[in-house]
Amino acid sequence: MSGVQGYDPRTGEPFGEPVPVTSDAEVDALARAAEAAFPSWSTLPGAERAELLDGLADALDAESGPLVETADRETALGVPRLTTELKRTTNQLRLFAGVLREGSYVEAVLDGADPDIIPPRPELRRVLRPLGPVAVFSASNFPFAFSVAGGDTASALAAGCPVVVKSHSAHPSTARETARVVASVLPAGVFGIVYGTQAGVALVKHPAVRAVGFTGSTGGGRALFDLASSRPDPIPFYGELGSVNPAVVLPAAASARGAEIAAGFAGSLVMGVGQFCTNPGLLFAPTALVPALAEAVSASAGGAMLNERMRDSYRSGTEDLAASGLASLVAEGTAPEAGWTAAPKLFTVPVEVFEENRERLTEEHFGPAGVVVTYDDPARVLALLPSLPGTLTGTVHADPEEHGLAAQAAEALRGVAGRIIFNAWPTGVAVAWGMHHGGPWPATTNPLHTSVGATSIRRWLAPVTYQSWPDELLPPELQSGNPLGIPRRVDGVLGTR
Amino acid sequence: MSGVQGYDPRTGEPFGEPVPVTSDAEVDALARAAEAAFPSWSTLPGAERAELLDGLADALDAESGPLVETADRETALGVPRLTTELKRTTNQLRLFAGVLREGSYVEAVLDGADPDIIPPRPELRRVLRPLGPVAVFSASNFPFAFSVAGGDTASALAAGCPVVVKSHSAHPSTARETARVVASVLPAGVFGIVYGTQAGVALVKHPAVRAVGFTGSTGGGRALFDLASSRPDPIPFYGELGSVNPAVVLPAAASARGAEIAAGFAGSLVMGVGQFCTNPGLLFAPTALVPALAEAVSASAGGAMLNERMRDSYRSGTEDLAASGLASLVAEGTAPEAGWTAAPKLFTVPVEVFEENRERLTEEHFGPAGVVVTYDDPARVLALLPSLPGTLTGTVHADPEEHGLAAQAAEALRGVAGRIIFNAWPTGVAVAWGMHHGGPWPATTNPLHTSVGATSIRRWLAPVTYQSWPDELLPPELQSGNPLGIPRRVDGVLGTR
Repeated sequence: MSGVQGYDPRTGEPFGEPVPVTSDAEVDALARAAEAAFPSWSTLPGAERAELLDGLADALDAESGPLVETADRETALGVPRLTTELKRTTNQLRLFAGVLREGSYVEAVLDGADPDIIPPRPELRRVLRPLGPVAVFSASNFPFAFSVAGGDTASALAAGCPVVVKSHSAHPSTARETARVVASVLPAGVFGIVYGTQAGVALVKHPAVRAVGFTGSTGGGRALFDLASSRPDPIPFYGELGSVNPAVVLPAAASARGAEIAAGFAGSLVMGVGQFCTNPGLLFAPTALVPALAEAVSASAGGAMLNERMRDSYRSGTEDLAASGLASLVAEGTAPEAGWTAAPKLFTVPVEVFEENRERLTEEHFGPAGVVVTYDDPARVLALLPSLPGTLTGTVHADPEEHGLAAQAAEALRGVAGRIIFNAWPTGVAVAWGMHHGGPWPATTNPLHTSVGATSIRRWLAPVTYQSWPDELLPPELQSGNPLGIPRRVDGVLGTR
Repeated sequence: MSGVQGYDPRTGEPFGEPVPVTSDAEVDALARAAEAAFPSWSTLPGAERAELLDGLADALDAESGPLVETADRETALGVPRLTTELKRTTNQLRLFAGVLREGSYVEAVLDGADPDIIPPRPELRRVLRPLGPVAVFSASNFPFAFSVAGGDTASALAAGCPVVVKSHSAHPSTARETARVVASVLPAGVFGIVYGTQAGVALVKHPAVRAVGFTGSTGGGRALFDLASSRPDPIPFYGELGSVNPAVVLPAAASARGAEIAAGFAGSLVMGVGQFCTNPGLLFAPTALVPALAEAVSASAGGAMLNERMRDSYRSGTEDLAASGLASLVAEGTAPEAGWTAAPKLFTVPVEVFEENRERLTEEHFGPAGVVVTYDDPARVLALLPSLPGTLTGTVHADPEEHGLAAQAAEALRGVAGRIIFNAWPTGVAVAWGMHHGGPWPATTNPLHTSVGATSIRRWLAPVTYQSWPDELLPPELQSGNPLGIPRRVDGVLGTR
């Protein structure tokens, strides 16, 4: 039987034992087990699912040391970053536990009967119910927060959906060790994990699977989206794909605090060797800011990338860009000699050239590479923002005197970006009620949904309306006395009746 | 230039002048006009869009006489039903106006900064924004409520999205006259209409169109869903397709009020010549109830169907079913001789035969045909409910002594049906906050959404989060003082802060 072998990116040497790939028969057994676990998991009171999510968070925190050590060997992301990432992952589980206890996530609606309107209204009570077993494809660049016990898994479990994870091939040992902790806390069948590309395909096509979450490349995500959409019974596919994350530095901000902006940009660009989906790969800046930007990137350090393929496509992508003659390489940072390392690179291109070569120049180069589009007239930049490809974030740097321009930039960005940032940088995605980590294609496969934050749970829930049922036969969320004390909409009015 | 010709189903003769089909160039111009109108329509304050929706409702009511007359000639649905349907359509517009004024539909969320948690949280403010121009495919069977000014159009306009309607070929004059009223009320570009199959295809593929609403057949809906999903930039496609709407009559209810149940069933089955998406085509009933059901259906009257193709497929579908030997034709109602008429038909099949031929026996026969699955042991019925195809509605008739069984039936139905009805019938879809008119495939292409009711507006909205923006640059929905006074979630708590 073949296996998924992990590697140490700092040396390029194998790390750990290969993890056996999952056969189609094993995928089927896991999906069927998830289906069998669905009735009990989906009807467990939210407060009890919350207890289990809290327990899972505690169990992962208790294993933080060995989990982080394994992840660091397989990803080279460093112990401090990975320690923080695991804490972020467990805090995410605790946020969802809180969401379950608060209870408004089921969006309960109670309408009294009204026989006199047209059409007449019977008594209607609406609530959200979980969809069924969910497949989650984990990401390479966040071995905890977007992987086995990451946001997709946590939100689906919170919703009441069993989860089968397709682990990422770049960190099989981290996946297996995390899965062991998850499985030890949850009831049998509620969680499963598979290894290998074919197992992922089998999962998306499996009749028991009712929805898919995915974080990864545009190519891989599109292939799986097409698979999910072309099933005899199409299922929702929530993919977070590529993003260039445009940032605009307006003229007065560039003049007033050029060095600070340049340092902030370079820090955001090279963080985690640029392997963030919110990496600011496209910067619109006054021509005068280029020297400061180049200085900051020259002074920055790269490092080992997550795997050899990524390093290779970073190299070939940035070399092709330099060779294209469209953009000029103006700065390069440092990188260690050994391992699958990459150095930060900064390119510039005048806005006039960008306008004519938009498609080529908005290709994402996953890694610490940035393209600065230089401009003299901000109106020219504002005019082209709405035609940028869909993106997770858009950033504006402005001084108080140019708030009018900043508001125009926000208006221009809001049709293409999921999150619009003022005088800060896009890397770092808070886990909160107000977070939106999504955006129009190709940022995601569905602009209505987020993969981070409290509202990400909505992806795994569908409405059901009960018409004229006796009160005692209704789910507690919908009973007249509101026994769970949750926020509800009663006769059109939001409240806690 | 070819045209779309309407017909009078009562005679089979042409009605009215053919309406010219829309060329690809005209489709492009309408989609571009919608795109051009988007910035102003989407940023018009909700209260002002509400005024226009109310104005549109009043304008349609004022034209009720001639609109209903035309629709009756093209659909044969009758003046009383069509008068009510138009009123339902205008009340729907008024409901959405109310939703805009209440303001919670934008789901505003305000989170304060918290630098101490992991990961640190900046100030985040989330709101829903309209997607962009929407294509709406209108239905044959509701020439007002699911057509030019119907639910998809009304909800998309309410959301702030311009709409281009693909009219249904069965009622071109009704569509054109309704479109004239709509266009007279709305700003230029906010509403357009196209005619002809190819124009619909061009619309779904048009780069300016950001989402599609559809009500119609499973085959037609699937083809357009595939088109939307295979675009270079896939767009959301909300299709309401076929549905068999299973109903279960439990034994004590059948004994206690068999005649009443039989009359209610037959009434729901033949209403509008069975041309409702919520038509109860599949009834599970004790064997003893069959004579009463047969009597009620024999006494019922059919009528002219909407068009010749529908009448033909009703005939061939029900004849094939009778010829299959799987089900027995036990009753047939009456129908007028002239025109494209169809008579109600009732079939029976023992539950044992149904279990072995589920796929064949859950095919929808659009029209007044019902299949009664006869049973002696209700446990057998409960066991097969979860494996039924996705459906808009599921119905349970129960007497107080069998409430336990009824609750089990509801639990079994909630994974397959969008609305679960107690001791009533599924036809008649109220327009309300609590309505869910949706369900798993093939009832719809996306189980998360409804095409009727206040929450149908959610289909046309996507989130955007503002991070750390100065208060005065934010949309009013997100400003600290809550100038619009709308319900919001502030620091995790729902309220009106």
